[in-house]
Amino acid sequence: MNSCLVSTQAQVLYDFTAEPGNNELSVREGETITLTNQNVGGGWIEAKNSRGEVGLVPEDYIEVCSGFRKWLLQRRHAVCVYSTFQKLGWDEEWDDVKSSGGYAESEAGEGGAINRGGAHGSSMKIGGEVGPVWAYPDYQLDCVVADPKKGSKMYGLKSYIEYQVTPTTTNKPVNHRYKHFDWLYERLLDKFGSAIPIPCLPDKQVTGRFEEEFIKMRMERLQGWMSRMCRHPVISSSEVFQLFLSYKDEKDWKTGKRKAEKDETVGVMIFSTIEPEGLPDLDLTEVEQKCEQFNRFTRAMDDGVKDLLTVGNEHWKRCTGPLPKEYQRIGKAFQNLSSVFTSSGYEGEAALTDALTAAGKTYEDIAQMVAEQPKKDLHFLMETNNEYKGLLGCFPDTIGVHKAAIEKVKEGDKLVATGKITTSEKTAMSKRASTMSYALQAEMNHFHSNRIYDYNRVMQQYLEQQVKFYEMIAEKLRNAHSQFTTM
Amino acid sequence: MNSCLVSTQAQVLYDFTAEPGNNELSVREGETITLTNQNVGGGWIEAKNSRGEVGLVPEDYIEVCSGFRKWLLQRRHAVCVYSTFQKLGWDEEWDDVKSSGGYAESEAGEGGAINRGGAHGSSMKIGGEVGPVWAYPDYQLDCVVADPKKGSKMYGLKSYIEYQVTPTTTNKPVNHRYKHFDWLYERLLDKFGSAIPIPCLPDKQVTGRFEEEFIKMRMERLQGWMSRMCRHPVISSSEVFQLFLSYKDEKDWKTGKRKAEKDETVGVMIFSTIEPEGLPDLDLTEVEQKCEQFNRFTRAMDDGVKDLLTVGNEHWKRCTGPLPKEYQRIGKAFQNLSSVFTSSGYEGEAALTDALTAAGKTYEDIAQMVAEQPKKDLHFLMETNNEYKGLLGCFPDTIGVHKAAIEKVKEGDKLVATGKITTSEKTAMSKRASTMSYALQAEMNHFHSNRIYDYNRVMQQYLEQQVKFYEMIAEKLRNAHSQFTTM
Repeated sequence: MNSCLVSTQAQVLYDFTAEPGNNELSVREGETITLTNQNVGGGWIEAKNSRGEVGLVPEDYIEVCSGFRKWLLQRRHAVCVYSTFQKLGWDEEWDDVKSSGGYAESEAGEGGAINRGGAHGSSMKIGGEVGPVWAYPDYQLDCVVADPKKGSKMYGLKSYIEYQVTPTTTNKPVNHRYKHFDWLYERLLDKFGSAIPIPCLPDKQVTGRFEEEFIKMRMERLQGWMSRMCRHPVISSSEVFQLFLSYKDEKDWKTGKRKAEKDETVGVMIFSTIEPEGLPDLDLTEVEQKCEQFNRFTRAMDDGVKDLLTVGNEHWKRCTGPLPKEYQRIGKAFQNLSSVFTSSGYEGEAALTDALTAAGKTYEDIAQMVAEQPKKDLHFLMETNNEYKGLLGCFPDTIGVHKAAIEKVKEGDKLVATGKITTSEKTAMSKRASTMSYALQAEMNHFHSNRIYDYNRVMQQYLEQQVKFYEMIAEKLRNAHSQFTTM
Repeated sequence: MNSCLVSTQAQVLYDFTAEPGNNELSVREGETITLTNQNVGGGWIEAKNSRGEVGLVPEDYIEVCSGFRKWLLQRRHAVCVYSTFQKLGWDEEWDDVKSSGGYAESEAGEGGAINRGGAHGSSMKIGGEVGPVWAYPDYQLDCVVADPKKGSKMYGLKSYIEYQVTPTTTNKPVNHRYKHFDWLYERLLDKFGSAIPIPCLPDKQVTGRFEEEFIKMRMERLQGWMSRMCRHPVISSSEVFQLFLSYKDEKDWKTGKRKAEKDETVGVMIFSTIEPEGLPDLDLTEVEQKCEQFNRFTRAMDDGVKDLLTVGNEHWKRCTGPLPKEYQRIGKAFQNLSSVFTSSGYEGEAALTDALTAAGKTYEDIAQMVAEQPKKDLHFLMETNNEYKGLLGCFPDTIGVHKAAIEKVKEGDKLVATGKITTSEKTAMSKRASTMSYALQAEMNHFHSNRIYDYNRVMQQYLEQQVKFYEMIAEKLRNAHSQFTTM
């Protein structure tokens, strides 16, 4: 990817609004800009727009390179995956890596507090009940994303937020900015994207990015993303992920970063590192069936998740908008009636007016409870489903890679007949498709077991909070009720 | 009121839409029609409209008489109560009744299962804490309105609903149609309307009047109206009310009805029957102050009640419309996700899918509970406030009568100076204003004590049902929660 910085032209990926008096340049998504100084540092570059205006732009917001990374980004919108796949000369690349061993097998365990060498040769085992599964480590890696701190570079001219990431294995914290997470995401997407759905990071955002609420939300989502990556045996054991979690010092990080960027075992080549040990080659029809089944399932779940998100969003709006307003108005109406009653001048009214006021205040309390409740329960249900929406959005590409491979194998006989490939090449192709199918099955089984865990957990949490909520309302109303007396 | 049926012209009071093929005539409110046959019977009269069309019209829907009743109806909208009051020659009428004794003192206790003679000379006593109060009977009269039955007249051509009214004193049921209740209302309004606010009957309605839901609602409201009338010591002990509750037979009813219609102790003359025993004459300033205080209070309460009704109506709509729909959609979304999960083909999914289905059904149950809840609690809160809205709407007239009397007394010195009245007449006028003020105070005290009872009762009932509702939701959700397991 070192060819990235040759061009002085760049495409703007996201809208960026300049902060006044800060020497920044506002740019729009899709705009082409010319880079005037790439050595500004601090995550910024100097650029000129078509109107000749010059200013600083966040480097994360522009795309200066073409090549595989760009292709991967575009591929998410590709109509015909197969043709792209063919054009890339998948077969040749695969064989190259196979024979040379590639990056994945070199320099393993070179540095870092924990073994970074587990990345090469991801293995699978036969899962008795569910079919092929990834080889899971004995110890489940996890990490804590916490303690967001404002840092600055360029003599305080540029500010950023740094998060502390602490792996449960070493308990030694490392610091990372959002752009580092984004770098990791890009590496993982390059390397594993064909076999493993890599969910997107939480949205980029520039305006309001120093606001407490936003930082908290981003941290929570980065935590969710990291935990999901940690849970994946192939990803969590990869060298690049281990580097991210446990680099020793700035030098170690820089060296590791450079090495990871040079890694050429990316895209479909990842399948060459997967060894379905002791598993027989699959029948083509079976591969196709599995692929179709997963495709149907992920599409159906995608619909289901989106439906739940739509309903949840509407419910959120109601719970934080009109509903508490209404309870507040009920509360006010009771209190209003109470103060009218107080003005009656009639003796022996106090018990009723006190009780009415208390009832009114109770409904005002309920209004507030209703408005605050979604943050306590619906929020997590929504976040989990949002995460799954992201994950499920990656599956069509992953499945597309498999479908393309299947089509190629199907063409095999014709290619042999026309002398384009040899019979042994055709056999190798079938074997690869079989490996890919095993990988897809392992990935789906990983997905299913995580899904079952996640939905059990989030539903438990949601319902537990809902129970508490309704119990607290009942309790408050019971108190309000007890203050009325029938004579 | 026997002059009512002399005219063959009548004014239509309410819109009436003819049922096709039933020999009926559609009429509009305000339309003038000519009566062609007043002896049809069964609550119907035959009439002709301006286009010459002839057909049956419910007799309740037209107004054929002029006179005091019409004046009372119109007075509700009178801008200047005083001038109307003067024009009617209030003083003379008052004196006439005083000297002759009038209807109120004659023919008392003539018939009926219970003593109907309590009506004449309503007395007050001094209430220690609250000021003047009505003389309450030892036993609180009440009645049960129940068992609506379809009856018919004119050889089945015309149908009506008859309700069974059972007084708690005799436990002997009598039957009454809505039109009889309306007749009673008119009599009470004529007789007591100047001193006691007589709340309107539940709305008249023609279309859909045989539908079960409507009959139930009307019965409930007639019950509320009757109970309120029973609770009033002056009304409940009046001859006409006793007749209504405990006539012996059809003949007794007809005789009593005719007599009541001939009663001339109506309008302001009712004050002549009130004897504030042992109470000193009130100072004019004090009378004015009391009047103003009550006026302010009833207006403020009217606003408060209307506010609560508005809020309650909106809440009702939300609880029966968008809110349950949303809970239903949440329930469906969970169940939908459950059936998607079932299609995964992954082993060990059953516990989650069963739990998700149960959670989904729980939210569907909650949707139904939410939609049905207003009938269990908000309904009674609304009905009570509706009743009070009706009652409070009568107060401006009642207070207007008093204000007019006060103005007249204020003019007293001028009238004496110009020789229009004598000094003793002026003294008598002041005495009457004092009596009216005592009556108003007694009535306000009656109103206040009933209000305190009613609001305590309805709030208790409302909150009790609300507590049950939220507890039941919590219980249902607790069950749903228990079905999820974290592995």
